Amino acid sequence: MSSSNNSKVLTLENMNSAVIKLEYAVRGPLVIRAGEIQKELQQKISKPFKDVIKANIGDCHAMGQKPITFLRQVLALATLPELLDSPDYPEDAKSRARILLENCLGYSIGSYTESVGLEIIRKHAAEYIEKRDGIPSNYEDILLFPGASSGIKNILKLLNAKIDGKSPGVMIPIPQYPLYSASVTEFNMVQIGYYLNESRNWSLEIEELERAINEAKKTCFPRILVIINPGNPTGQVLTKENIEEVIKFAYREKLFLFADEVYQDNVYAEGCKFFSFKKVMFEMGPPYSQMELASFMSCSKGYMGECGLRGAYAEVVNMDPKVKTMLFKLVSASLCPSVHGQIALDCVVKPPMPGEESYDLFIKEKTAVLSSLAERAKMVADTLNNIPSITCNPVQGAMYAFPKLLENTGICIVPGAGFGQEPGTYHFRTTILPQMTRLKEMLTRFEQFHLKFLHEYQ
Amino acid sequence: MSSSNNSKVLTLENMNSAVIKLEYAVRGPLVIRAGEIQKELQQKISKPFKDVIKANIGDCHAMGQKPITFLRQVLALATLPELLDSPDYPEDAKSRARILLENCLGYSIGSYTESVGLEIIRKHAAEYIEKRDGIPSNYEDILLFPGASSGIKNILKLLNAKIDGKSPGVMIPIPQYPLYSASVTEFNMVQIGYYLNESRNWSLEIEELERAINEAKKTCFPRILVIINPGNPTGQVLTKENIEEVIKFAYREKLFLFADEVYQDNVYAEGCKFFSFKKVMFEMGPPYSQMELASFMSCSKGYMGECGLRGAYAEVVNMDPKVKTMLFKLVSASLCPSVHGQIALDCVVKPPMPGEESYDLFIKEKTAVLSSLAERAKMVADTLNNIPSITCNPVQGAMYAFPKLLENTGICIVPGAGFGQEPGTYHFRTTILPQMTRLKEMLTRFEQFHLKFLHEYQ
Repeated sequence: MSSSNNSKVLTLENMNSAVIKLEYAVRGPLVIRAGEIQKELQQKISKPFKDVIKANIGDCHAMGQKPITFLRQVLALATLPELLDSPDYPEDAKSRARILLENCLGYSIGSYTESVGLEIIRKHAAEYIEKRDGIPSNYEDILLFPGASSGIKNILKLLNAKIDGKSPGVMIPIPQYPLYSASVTEFNMVQIGYYLNESRNWSLEIEELERAINEAKKTCFPRILVIINPGNPTGQVLTKENIEEVIKFAYREKLFLFADEVYQDNVYAEGCKFFSFKKVMFEMGPPYSQMELASFMSCSKGYMGECGLRGAYAEVVNMDPKVKTMLFKLVSASLCPSVHGQIALDCVVKPPMPGEESYDLFIKEKTAVLSSLAERAKMVADTLNNIPSITCNPVQGAMYAFPKLLENTGICIVPGAGFGQEPGTYHFRTTILPQMTRLKEMLTRFEQFHLKFLHEYQ
Repeated sequence: MSSSNNSKVLTLENMNSAVIKLEYAVRGPLVIRAGEIQKELQQKISKPFKDVIKANIGDCHAMGQKPITFLRQVLALATLPELLDSPDYPEDAKSRARILLENCLGYSIGSYTESVGLEIIRKHAAEYIEKRDGIPSNYEDILLFPGASSGIKNILKLLNAKIDGKSPGVMIPIPQYPLYSASVTEFNMVQIGYYLNESRNWSLEIEELERAINEAKKTCFPRILVIINPGNPTGQVLTKENIEEVIKFAYREKLFLFADEVYQDNVYAEGCKFFSFKKVMFEMGPPYSQMELASFMSCSKGYMGECGLRGAYAEVVNMDPKVKTMLFKLVSASLCPSVHGQIALDCVVKPPMPGEESYDLFIKEKTAVLSSLAERAKMVADTLNNIPSITCNPVQGAMYAFPKLLENTGICIVPGAGFGQEPGTYHFRTTILPQMTRLKEMLTRFEQFHLKFLHEYQ
């Protein structure tokens, strides 16, 4: 084969086309432009605003949320074990760090753990799930991952096989979190979008699931149903009855359920309550309690918001043991998740208990974060609804509002197209994470721009 | 579609067959059995030995290696910023933690970073490479990953496209590190094995590369040449002349070079020196200096051995800018690498400098680890060569010996088949990581078993 100086071995023309196709709006061109504008502001280039307010990504600490002290203390103690002799740390944090270190080879977080994570943390996660649901959980069904995204991609990969010559179809909500569309594209699977009903507070309607799957069956073999509850970017919290209907639908259609439940601690609205898919499935009894399900939880969201630490778990329920062996083998080629991320997750699934030294501070910090988020959730929806030609459903849970409008600018949010929206509607996703004063400033800026826009073009 | 209670949605028959095919020997069935034996020993089940010596994986801290103090201090300070006010930490560690925190949104390692890692750490990595090679390095070519494996898989994925209807071929050394065979299988790419010449100390011979590629061209389209230098599992260090020949071969064949250089600090043998592929390529001048290359470095190996922290970088040299944009987009869907892993890598690429408070201790710790590894490297090869019917090349670098023999048991090492070996030869890979007394015990146990075996079957 001949070669010339100017031609590259790898070009846009001969690279993996799936990678070219994939889109990830949360970190897309608007966010890159926001970064440029920030640099321009630092260089004193004049703009109609003094700073960029980033409400594009669910990044709690970036927006001023403080970490949970107990979690950070355990991490520091495990990192620098000489601190275990210091009187400056609570006994429960020290004893937690000691137990975790005893489970690390060589008493060091610098050792590899099992590929699916430390057994003791998987056991703590199983206890957490049992306590949450009142349903048994087996630690052997739990795998730790460096972020829920990694867990979702690994389990999705298992299902990536043609059946009857047809590509596997993945049902994902529209609007959805773009990880799903990106991964489905990357793996050359087929996306089956089902619309959430905005006029009924982003409810998940069975007729729409049926419409979507029947249409999809012409071109692919539907295998997976993804549910995001509480919703991202839409912030709704599913009722138990709604979950039951969805489970029955998945059973009829022989779908593998993916329950993205990373916002399970983020439920704000009166009368709303989080129900895990697993709990509902088991309470329905056979045959539903025998269905296959993967549920995902992360330490990036909730009240802890530790996005940078990359700690998460997946629970795989009723998975064929032979398939589970293959899943364990697949993750082994990634060696192991970050031990710091694993430790952070341990503190989330086994927080300080009443009577322990760190308990009071922990509850104080957790409550402060969650009540502040609840307040901001209400304020954002109320304010947006007071702006002409914008409507916004209540933010029942998660960290986002997804209002319907005509156009936007200035503030770093994510256009609705990145999550999917019904044709002819225009949305953006904003987090509710900027602290209250910043959030008010952002909404004021937004309102002024929007009113000017309406004035000019209406 | 009908469904029955007993049938699973996902089975071995209808799952992704590439996942079934992939093998990852370092964590395969032997390692699982070793874990079982350890549990049995804890339960006082009688065995002909009292403990399991794990020499199957390059897990330094698990084998008693101590972490570098500076690195752990910076991590603890960044995790718990209140420690920045304490007089108990050296000023350079505190100032490093402060600088890194200033580059984290919200002054917290709990925030997401850019998907390719913090810009400041990428800049430090570029400075490290420049200093190492005397060749310019652009931080915009550097991406941080949670482990070199993740970087390798992401870049491999870019090249996964059929050309002229043929699947892409990946040339990997035999013996090789099984990440490569596992990833090539997972991605449905084609493995092109080229044998290293054991009789010439695992040298990489151009005639063998040519034989392998010519044979492969009948069935696939060769696109990538993977080199592991220093070698894993074979421990050889390539000479500059050998690297030049390899580069010329890759140029003739229009291959994208993958230089796995994670053991660049682990060079022990007299007269051996590490040369990066990038340095050699640039010193050769055009057209070689314009070739596309990805080089990988990790904080899991070297003198730091921080496997559990998951910190690594890839430098992509001469990559088409449009392709690089696609690579950045691809990694953005994984959000970001662990910030702790990024910080660990920062300490590796920018260690304490002469005159700084931590310098003396750092050099003492680094030297102690590397000289102890050098001693163990020599001892392992010498001892193995003194056992009848076993031969072992000198361990010039990395952390492994790959001796040729007839059979083995008892000690947890990895059979040669997991790395690939010439038909009719039998090897195992052992790390040189157990501390000296344990390593001697292991070799004695091994020798006794082996002599007994020869006595019975010869």
